[in-house]
Amino acid sequence: MKYSKLHLSIAVTCLALLCSFANIYAQQVNKEDSLTIRKIYDKALLNGKSYDWLDYLSNNIGGRLSGSLEAEKAVRYTEAELKKLGLDKVWLQPVMVPKWTRGVKEYAYIETAPGITSTTNICALGGSVPTPSGGLKAHVVEVQNFEDLAQLGREAIEGKIVFYNRPMQANLIRTFEAYGGCVNQRYAGAMEAAKYGAVGVVVRSMNLRNDDFPHTGSMSYGDTPADLRIPACAISTNGADYLSSALKLKPDLKFYFKQSCKTYPDVQSYNVIGEITGTTYPNRYMIVGGHLDSWDLGDGSHDDGAGCVQSMEVLRLFKEIGYKPKHSIRVVLFMNEENGLRGGRKYAEEARLKNEQHVFALESDAGGFTPRGFSFDTDKENFAQIESWKNLFEPYLIHSFTMGGSGADIGPLKDGSIVLAGLRPDSQRYFDYHHAENDTFDAVNKRELELGAATMASLVYLMDKYGTRNELKEIKK
Amino acid sequence: MKYSKLHLSIAVTCLALLCSFANIYAQQVNKEDSLTIRKIYDKALLNGKSYDWLDYLSNNIGGRLSGSLEAEKAVRYTEAELKKLGLDKVWLQPVMVPKWTRGVKEYAYIETAPGITSTTNICALGGSVPTPSGGLKAHVVEVQNFEDLAQLGREAIEGKIVFYNRPMQANLIRTFEAYGGCVNQRYAGAMEAAKYGAVGVVVRSMNLRNDDFPHTGSMSYGDTPADLRIPACAISTNGADYLSSALKLKPDLKFYFKQSCKTYPDVQSYNVIGEITGTTYPNRYMIVGGHLDSWDLGDGSHDDGAGCVQSMEVLRLFKEIGYKPKHSIRVVLFMNEENGLRGGRKYAEEARLKNEQHVFALESDAGGFTPRGFSFDTDKENFAQIESWKNLFEPYLIHSFTMGGSGADIGPLKDGSIVLAGLRPDSQRYFDYHHAENDTFDAVNKRELELGAATMASLVYLMDKYGTRNELKEIKK
Repeated sequence: MKYSKLHLSIAVTCLALLCSFANIYAQQVNKEDSLTIRKIYDKALLNGKSYDWLDYLSNNIGGRLSGSLEAEKAVRYTEAELKKLGLDKVWLQPVMVPKWTRGVKEYAYIETAPGITSTTNICALGGSVPTPSGGLKAHVVEVQNFEDLAQLGREAIEGKIVFYNRPMQANLIRTFEAYGGCVNQRYAGAMEAAKYGAVGVVVRSMNLRNDDFPHTGSMSYGDTPADLRIPACAISTNGADYLSSALKLKPDLKFYFKQSCKTYPDVQSYNVIGEITGTTYPNRYMIVGGHLDSWDLGDGSHDDGAGCVQSMEVLRLFKEIGYKPKHSIRVVLFMNEENGLRGGRKYAEEARLKNEQHVFALESDAGGFTPRGFSFDTDKENFAQIESWKNLFEPYLIHSFTMGGSGADIGPLKDGSIVLAGLRPDSQRYFDYHHAENDTFDAVNKRELELGAATMASLVYLMDKYGTRNELKEIKK
Repeated sequence: MKYSKLHLSIAVTCLALLCSFANIYAQQVNKEDSLTIRKIYDKALLNGKSYDWLDYLSNNIGGRLSGSLEAEKAVRYTEAELKKLGLDKVWLQPVMVPKWTRGVKEYAYIETAPGITSTTNICALGGSVPTPSGGLKAHVVEVQNFEDLAQLGREAIEGKIVFYNRPMQANLIRTFEAYGGCVNQRYAGAMEAAKYGAVGVVVRSMNLRNDDFPHTGSMSYGDTPADLRIPACAISTNGADYLSSALKLKPDLKFYFKQSCKTYPDVQSYNVIGEITGTTYPNRYMIVGGHLDSWDLGDGSHDDGAGCVQSMEVLRLFKEIGYKPKHSIRVVLFMNEENGLRGGRKYAEEARLKNEQHVFALESDAGGFTPRGFSFDTDKENFAQIESWKNLFEPYLIHSFTMGGSGADIGPLKDGSIVLAGLRPDSQRYFDYHHAENDTFDAVNKRELELGAATMASLVYLMDKYGTRNELKEIKK
């Protein structure tokens, strides 16, 4: 008993000594790091370039749907801007992308009695088929989810328009969780309703705010045969509330909508890539990126112009403060996140073909709002290392380091070894703008955008300097 | 040696046991608390009232400068709304306030050569004297600070307009620090310039963004004799940059401005107060508040309509979840924070006269943005207790608990025992709107406002339930 206690006490003493050495070491490390990080934030806030780039992308180019002229312009513009930064390499990585066009502006109304109509704001969901050229008019059945469809059955649904009206849950603090709880009605709503003979689908916009903007987004018909595919649109939250209350008073009302969207054969596009080649490990890659494509309704300023310019800014900041990374650091502006993820898949595919060892990837695709932290897709050991840097981020009010998702475009790089991360900005306003006409430059605050870029650069700096835990293990081998 | 190690090991074991008991206790306490706090956030986000109240204050009443009709309307409105909540008491506390009016819209231009003018956006600073009725035109001397005045001396300044152009420091993460580093040029600029014979003062707006809105705010002449007081105005950040660059090209340019503001004798106004009387300690008070007055240019939505409606919401949330506080909880809507602090002083004065023991006060006066935490004006012991609640706030992304300021209106309550606190929302956008025409309802996000109210209610709940450390000490006595 005494012996074991003695052992314990020796262990405690050793641990204490170890801790105090570790502490001194940590403090020294931290001083240099905290000075570098201070420099990064200073440059981003006093002399940043991200806001100007976003201004151009938003106001001179605009919405950049895959396969559009705007997407092509954005590729050329960002390539040219990266070339001005004095990186070691800048190139375009070819990738075939889907081409879907919205056509003329959609039109819809609610007819409560013959000839008594009120127009309402809709937009086609990305990938939807068009309505017949004269539009589509039918009775409406309102549901909350797919279970409701099953319960109602074909009898109640056939020949009607299904109206999915499940709202985002406002009491979830993380708005992406509220989005996750609703988005299946947008993505798979048409495919599911078609099984019961529905002729069209109207989906409540994924928006926590009551306003008049319809929010588009991707949808899929799965393996529904072409002749059974039904048109799908989103209705604004105000419109959805109106339609729902009108249905309570007039269950026999009809909904009319007309959209002329169309899918074309795939077209050539590109990921835009820039690289600072590493001094010590030129063949190990750390990447930082966002997606260059966007939906077409607004200017894609938050989604994901912000992520692109922040990622470009990371490399620019390294050049400006004269930091020469050990690893090769790449900025990757992915094409086609919104309706295909072809760019993300292509990048991962080529990295594998060329045997490029990717050790870390960071994506910004949650809006240009005040950064709050990061989420990581990695193991406990790597996460613990990252958490040990928390105090370096504290002066910049970056507090949230969590395990969880990273980013759609970098997902295909996942291989059990790479550390994946996503910037996590404040999410409260994100879905006010997401995929809607009001996702424009004026909705982005310069400081918030710049703080995000500096926060990303700081993490990449630390990852580069200390390496991932997986790299350390490799070196030991 | 062995003996002391044995002692150590026993101590360690005891400590471990103690910790594990404390841990179990903490977990039980926390479970009940975390359920209550969850309820508070749910109600605020799903059924909140703060946004509707703010809508009325902003859009039906508007800017509420002390002594104005709008301020009077706001007193009546909030009193009536508090009465609807079923509180135990609602009353008005009379307080005499200053009355300053802006008069007709100010007008200014830069004259680079005789007859060659460009207009620029200005507004009178609160408390300024008017210009002569025909306006004031003079040469301009640009300075960064009061030291520049001393260096230039009377010779260079006499008969001229002093243009203070020190910008807010963009690389400070906490924007209130950047404000603190600049605001003396607004508050004391006229008083200092008058000492050197200046005839007027133009101050760069306290705004981190480049735009066209001039930002007003309080200024003081100190003990400058009435006949030596010179008019002072704010110029927008874009205007300031323009004027500065024009001065570089044409040092002899003249600046013209005209304002007809006026100070009247003090008038009667009120603090608006509502109370839920405590079940256990009815004679101990915890207060939560904001200031009901605002500047006149915008609608005072962020400053401080948001703080008022959040404070009202705290008491409404307690009623809605059926929480009966031990202490008497008061909401206090202070009058005249902006240009006098008379309401805050009056409240503290009466509390002392009536021997009301105030143990905790929380103010929200930093905008209706996403809450990040609180700052506290208290001692280490109380702060440690509050920090022990951090994990309860973590699910709501409230991470920042710091020592520091609290709020201007509750400051006069400070007595060495009361715990003072201020809500700390994200501050990045605050000075885009502060004291300017664009501080309007549309700049406030419903969720962000509601999260602030819930965060405040949660802290008041914990303070009420566990009491301050100072109360505990008193009980022990």
